[in-house]
Amino acid sequence: MPAAPVFLIGFPAAGKTSVGRGVAAALGRPFVDLDDAIAAAAGQPVPALVAADEPAFRAREAAALAALAARADAPIIATGGGAAAHGDNLARMRAAGAVIALDVPLDVALARVAPGSRPLLARPADEIAALYRRRAPAYRRAHATIATAGLTLAQVVDATVAAIARIEAPASRHPWVCLGERSYPVIVDAGPLDAALAPWVRPGRHALVVDGNLAPWIAPVATALTAAGADLHVEQVAPGEASKALAEYGRLAAALVAAGLDRASTIFALGGGVVGDLAGFVAATLYRGVDVVHLPTTLVAMTDSAIGGKTAVDLPAGKNLLGAFHQPRAVLAHLPTLATLPPRERRAGFGELWKYALLDGEALWAAVAALAPWAQTDAPPPPAAAPVIAAAATLKAAIVSADERERRGQRVLLNLGHTVGHAIEAAADWQLLHGEAVGLGLIAAARISHRLGLAAADLEPRVTAGLAATGLPTDLAPWLRPEVLARVAVDKKRTGGRLAFVACAAPGDCQVVDLPTTAIADLLRP
Amino acid sequence: MPAAPVFLIGFPAAGKTSVGRGVAAALGRPFVDLDDAIAAAAGQPVPALVAADEPAFRAREAAALAALAARADAPIIATGGGAAAHGDNLARMRAAGAVIALDVPLDVALARVAPGSRPLLARPADEIAALYRRRAPAYRRAHATIATAGLTLAQVVDATVAAIARIEAPASRHPWVCLGERSYPVIVDAGPLDAALAPWVRPGRHALVVDGNLAPWIAPVATALTAAGADLHVEQVAPGEASKALAEYGRLAAALVAAGLDRASTIFALGGGVVGDLAGFVAATLYRGVDVVHLPTTLVAMTDSAIGGKTAVDLPAGKNLLGAFHQPRAVLAHLPTLATLPPRERRAGFGELWKYALLDGEALWAAVAALAPWAQTDAPPPPAAAPVIAAAATLKAAIVSADERERRGQRVLLNLGHTVGHAIEAAADWQLLHGEAVGLGLIAAARISHRLGLAAADLEPRVTAGLAATGLPTDLAPWLRPEVLARVAVDKKRTGGRLAFVACAAPGDCQVVDLPTTAIADLLRP
Repeated sequence: MPAAPVFLIGFPAAGKTSVGRGVAAALGRPFVDLDDAIAAAAGQPVPALVAADEPAFRAREAAALAALAARADAPIIATGGGAAAHGDNLARMRAAGAVIALDVPLDVALARVAPGSRPLLARPADEIAALYRRRAPAYRRAHATIATAGLTLAQVVDATVAAIARIEAPASRHPWVCLGERSYPVIVDAGPLDAALAPWVRPGRHALVVDGNLAPWIAPVATALTAAGADLHVEQVAPGEASKALAEYGRLAAALVAAGLDRASTIFALGGGVVGDLAGFVAATLYRGVDVVHLPTTLVAMTDSAIGGKTAVDLPAGKNLLGAFHQPRAVLAHLPTLATLPPRERRAGFGELWKYALLDGEALWAAVAALAPWAQTDAPPPPAAAPVIAAAATLKAAIVSADERERRGQRVLLNLGHTVGHAIEAAADWQLLHGEAVGLGLIAAARISHRLGLAAADLEPRVTAGLAATGLPTDLAPWLRPEVLARVAVDKKRTGGRLAFVACAAPGDCQVVDLPTTAIADLLRP
Repeated sequence: MPAAPVFLIGFPAAGKTSVGRGVAAALGRPFVDLDDAIAAAAGQPVPALVAADEPAFRAREAAALAALAARADAPIIATGGGAAAHGDNLARMRAAGAVIALDVPLDVALARVAPGSRPLLARPADEIAALYRRRAPAYRRAHATIATAGLTLAQVVDATVAAIARIEAPASRHPWVCLGERSYPVIVDAGPLDAALAPWVRPGRHALVVDGNLAPWIAPVATALTAAGADLHVEQVAPGEASKALAEYGRLAAALVAAGLDRASTIFALGGGVVGDLAGFVAATLYRGVDVVHLPTTLVAMTDSAIGGKTAVDLPAGKNLLGAFHQPRAVLAHLPTLATLPPRERRAGFGELWKYALLDGEALWAAVAALAPWAQTDAPPPPAAAPVIAAAATLKAAIVSADERERRGQRVLLNLGHTVGHAIEAAADWQLLHGEAVGLGLIAAARISHRLGLAAADLEPRVTAGLAATGLPTDLAPWLRPEVLARVAVDKKRTGGRLAFVACAAPGDCQVVDLPTTAIADLLRP
C-alpha cells in the first residue's frame, strides 16, 4: 500500500503523541493529534467536551477521524485512547491507511503518568483495569503492534517507522508480528501459489515437509518453490498427533541432514498443527536453528499454531512438553488448501475460532456464527471465511508482538480453553481432536469464570450453543473425572502448584487469574 | 569489589570517550580521558608524542595509568586504543578495578569515523585489519565486554552501567557474559560449595543432572543445594558421548517431568561437556525453556562448553546436529571436581587450553606450557591452574558477549581446530576424546594457515610440541583419509558448500577465512 495516513492507537500513556511526533519528524510527514484537532474545531478542550456530553464528543471524534482519513498528505495521526474502541472508527482507519498499536502493560502506563495529569487514569484501579481489558481487543486489531515496555522513546519511534515501512510496502497490508529484526507477516489468501511463495525462496537447498494428507498439494507447492529457485527436498510426515513425537523428530532431522540441508536452508512446513509444530521444532534445533516458513492448511494452524513461533513435540506424559520458541520468516495461509480438511477436522477448527471470538468481542462472535453452516458441510471455504481467519490471525499476531514469550501475561490469554482442554485431549488418548478438546475447555472456562463471579450464568450455555451449531462436542460431564483433572497439574504452564487460568467475563473481556491447580476440580463440579 | 576505577578499553571508534562521559554522568563519578591526561602532563598532543617517540609515549601512558589506578574517587577512565595491549597495563587495570571492553566490529568502527579525523584509521586497510586482529585478544581480557554494534550511545551507556554494577557487587570480580537481561558470571573457584551454590537456588522443585563418573560429588552438591532451599531430584546420566543422543534426551526429559519439575525449576548440570550439552538442551526445550546452572567438572567444560549457551545432542550423521542456544544463569567451576577426571580426560582438556593459547597470545601459551607436568600426572590441580582456567573462561565470555550467535564471525574464532577436529572425532567413532581430536585439529589448522601464507612454517611443529608435552596425540597423518575429510562437508557450519575456517598466524593472531569445503583436503596434503 502506498504512503497513506498512519493511525497510532493504544491506551492512555502508551506514548501515541510523543511517538507520533518522532515518527513524523523521521519520515518528514505531517503530524496531527486527533484530540487537538477536535478541540480546535469545537473551541473547547477535550476533557470538557467529554464531561459535558460523551456521545456528542464521540460523534465529533468520528467526524474528525473521517476528515483525517481522507487527507492525501499521509499524516501521522495520534488518536485518543478511546477512538479505536468506538463505532466504526477502527474499520475506517484500517481502510484508509496503516494502523499501529502501541502496546503498554497497565502497570507501566500507570507508572508513566504524573499524578493528576491524566483524568482518565485517576479513576479507581479496578475501573481502569476493566477499561484496559475491554479496550485491548480493539487495539489488537491494528496492522502491527509495537511493545513499548522497557524501550526508550527513540527505540519505539524506530520500531514504528520500521512497521510503517513494512505495511506500506507493495501489497503488504497484512497483520505483522513485530519483533524487531525477526518481524514477519501473516498473509491470509495471498493469491496464486507461485507469486505467494516466490518472495520467501533464496537460492540453495531447502525442504518441503508435508503432512501425508496434503498429497494433492505437494506437486503444486513443490513446483512453485522450485520455479522460484529452490533446490528442493520433499519429506512426508504421517498424519496425526502420533507424529509429534521424539522418534519422528529424530527421523525427520536425520532425513534433512542426509538430504543436504545446511545452515542457510529454509524448511517450508505444509500442513496443520502437527507438521507445523514438528517441522518448526526441527527448524528451531537443526544446526541450532534454520529458517522456517509456515504454510498452514487447517483453520487451527492458520489462526493459531503457525503464528507466534511456538514449536513442540509431545512426551507420553503430556502434549508439547518439549519445544522451543522459533519465529518463522513468514506465515502464508493459502485458503484453497482448507478443502483438504476432513469434515471433522474443519469442525474442530471452529474450537479455536470460538476462542478468538471470546477474546475479541461480539462482532467476531457474530462472524464466526455466520460461518457455522460451512462447518457442517464439505464445501470449499466461502468468501466470508477469509476475513474471519484474517481477524483471528491479526489478534494472534498482536498478542505475540506484545508478549513474545508469555512474560507479561498477555500471551497467556491465548490459552483460553486450553488448560482443561489439554487435559481432556491427553486423557482421551488423542482420540479427540485438539479443537474439539479446546471447545470443551471453553465450556469449562465459562463455567469457572461464572463460579469465580466474573461471568454471567448465560455465558456457558451461549458457548455451548455456538459449539453445537458448528457440530462440536459439548458434553463436558464425562471428562470431569479426577484422573482427567489430575492432568491439569502436569500442564507446562503451572509454576509452583499454581496456574495462570484465562477467565472470560463476556466476548471481548477476558483476563488471566492466578489459581491453585487444585481449585480447578472444585470450580468445575456440575 | 567496592567502587573502584573503571577502565574502558577497545579499538579506536569503539566509543570509549563518549560512553565514559555518559557512564560518569549516570553514576555521578569523575571522568578522565587517559590521552588527555598524558597530553596535559607532557604539554604536547598525543599524536605528536606518538610520532616523535612511541616507546617514550608508551612509558608516559603506563605512568599515567598507574596514577589513575591509585585514585580513590573511583573515576571512569577512557583509555587509548593501544593502552590495553602494551606492557602490563592490562594486569594493572584488572587489579585496580573493573575493566570493560567496548566491542566494535572493524567495519562498524571504520564507518563511524569521519575521514581524516583519526590518524590511526587512515592507514591502509590491511594494516588496520592486522592491528585489529592483534589487539583483539587484549580487549577480550576485560571483566566484561559490551557489544556496541547497532546500539545507540544511550544503550551502550546503560549496558556499561549495568556491567559495572555487576562487577562491583560484593565478591563478583568474575568474567561476565554480557547479554542484557541474560547476563551471567563465570565463577572459577568460588570456594566452599555451600556458599558458591546458595545464590543460585530459589525455593521450589529443581534437578541435579549428574554424570555417572561424578558419583563422589553427588552427596556434597545435593546437600549444598538442599541446604539452600531446593526440593531436589537427582538424575544420573551414563558417562560418555553415547549419552548425547536423542534417546537419552527423551529419557532425561521424561524423568524430569515425572519428578515434578515445572517452568520455574532450575536444572543444575554437574559434569563435563556431555552432561552440560545434554542437560542444557533439555533445559532449553523442557516446557519450551527452564533455567540451567552449569557446574562444569572438566577442563573443557570449565573453559569452553559450559560458557556461551550452546547446547546439543548428536545424530548418527554427526555431532551436535540438533541443539539450541540457551544461556545459563551462571557457570560455577569448582576446581576440586577436576580431581575426578581420569588422566586421559585431563590430558584431553589441554586440547582446548592450547586452542585458547593460540587465540590469546604468548603469555597464555607460556602459562599453559607451565601446567604441562600436571597433565601427565593424576595430582589435584596446582594453584597455577586457576588463573589459566580463568583466563580461558574470560576469553570465551568476551567472545560470546560480542557475538552470541555467530553472526559477526567473532564467535567462529572458537572453532579453531574444530573443523577438522570434529571430522576426526566422528570418523574415530567417538574413540578419540573431544580434546584429543581438537588437538589434531589445531595441527591441521596450523598446517592450513601456513599453506594459505598466513602462518610461518614453525607454527605446526610448535603446536605439535605443545600437544606432545601434555601427552596428547600428534599424529595427524592417519586421519587424512578421504572418508574422514569428507565429513568436514557435513559440519553444521558449512553454508552453500563453503565454510568459515579459523586460521592462525601466530599465538594471539587468528582470523576467519572463507574456504570452499573441498579445499581442506588439498591444503592438508602432507
